[in-house]
Amino acid sequence: MSLLEDLNWRHAVKAYDPNKKVSQENIDKIVEAARMAPTSSGLQPFKVIVVQNQEIKERLMKGALNPECMRDSSHVILFAAWDTYTEERIDKVYDYTTDERGLPRGRFGTYTDKLKSIYLTQPAENNFAHTARQTYIALGLAFAQAAELRVDTTPVEGFDNAVVDEILELKKYGLKSVSLMYVGYADPEKDWVGTMKKVRLPKEEFVLEY
Amino acid sequence: MSLLEDLNWRHAVKAYDPNKKVSQENIDKIVEAARMAPTSSGLQPFKVIVVQNQEIKERLMKGALNPECMRDSSHVILFAAWDTYTEERIDKVYDYTTDERGLPRGRFGTYTDKLKSIYLTQPAENNFAHTARQTYIALGLAFAQAAELRVDTTPVEGFDNAVVDEILELKKYGLKSVSLMYVGYADPEKDWVGTMKKVRLPKEEFVLEY
Repeated sequence: MSLLEDLNWRHAVKAYDPNKKVSQENIDKIVEAARMAPTSSGLQPFKVIVVQNQEIKERLMKGALNPECMRDSSHVILFAAWDTYTEERIDKVYDYTTDERGLPRGRFGTYTDKLKSIYLTQPAENNFAHTARQTYIALGLAFAQAAELRVDTTPVEGFDNAVVDEILELKKYGLKSVSLMYVGYADPEKDWVGTMKKVRLPKEEFVLEY
Repeated sequence: MSLLEDLNWRHAVKAYDPNKKVSQENIDKIVEAARMAPTSSGLQPFKVIVVQNQEIKERLMKGALNPECMRDSSHVILFAAWDTYTEERIDKVYDYTTDERGLPRGRFGTYTDKLKSIYLTQPAENNFAHTARQTYIALGLAFAQAAELRVDTTPVEGFDNAVVDEILELKKYGLKSVSLMYVGYADPEKDWVGTMKKVRLPKEEFVLEY
């Protein structure tokens, strides 16, 4: 199978079969694809939060625009980005990187100083706009991985971030919710999108070539 | 090959061999992965701009933080997002979708009215923040596709957007640049990152499970 076949196979599922659960092995692979996602300066400024506990999912439904879809999914994966960049967070990533590479700490000091001069002088909301963007790379790779495994997903931006942040206590981790991904197996009777033709803008409207 | 193997294989290349060009067939597949990327409400609010013309690449170098890397790459792919949402743009996508599905135009009218009530009442910069996020899904899938083909890439956020926007005349298309991706084949002598261990935060720091 190729990535293009996987992308053609997938669609944003509208209804899940509540009796079909995704294996831990498959969830681990989906999370691993998100973990391997490249990010700006390698900072990985986000976490993924995997919820399979049905009670927590039902609390999260309060913030969902499509609550039945969330309820009946097997797992809900939240992408939550750093609320800002801090000196400590940047140093922690680079200290870990140099340690793992057997290099002296501070080996990338000129570079991290430059990052700090940019990020530590601008408002937290600008930094969050940047960390949030990075999560979309991981989101895309996560549902590509799910598609490779023929696991269904629904990417979701429309939800009440304040409700989700509070239930999952994101503030104490310095995180803010960005997007959700429902994971499971579609209910073909109710998933009305599944039978519709997949439509994308034609290539000639999507690409400019020079 | 699996997506995880491809993601482990790739890294952000720092130097390209200027004598090695990527085939049109491979460029087409990379663009196709971006075109298949899911986006919020299916609006695909961006274009990709593929530059292989060396003269234009050398003009773009003025806006690049790593100009030699850009110059020596085979192709530069720009992800450029809609500068805002408009009624016309939303209708165009949904008219095309209903036409392709053999449905009457307006079939999703309740939904597009809701989108318009959100997007047309907020400032263009908020809309651009949203369209820009969508490009990162496509960026991630594009370099995953390149990796599957064992084509090297460099995702690049750090460049002078105003210079790039002007050279590529993005304003007339209603677009603003978001990110670049250099595409080519690494020069192993100069690509110092290629020999370093790939480092990602350990899973236990990256994931929270409930």
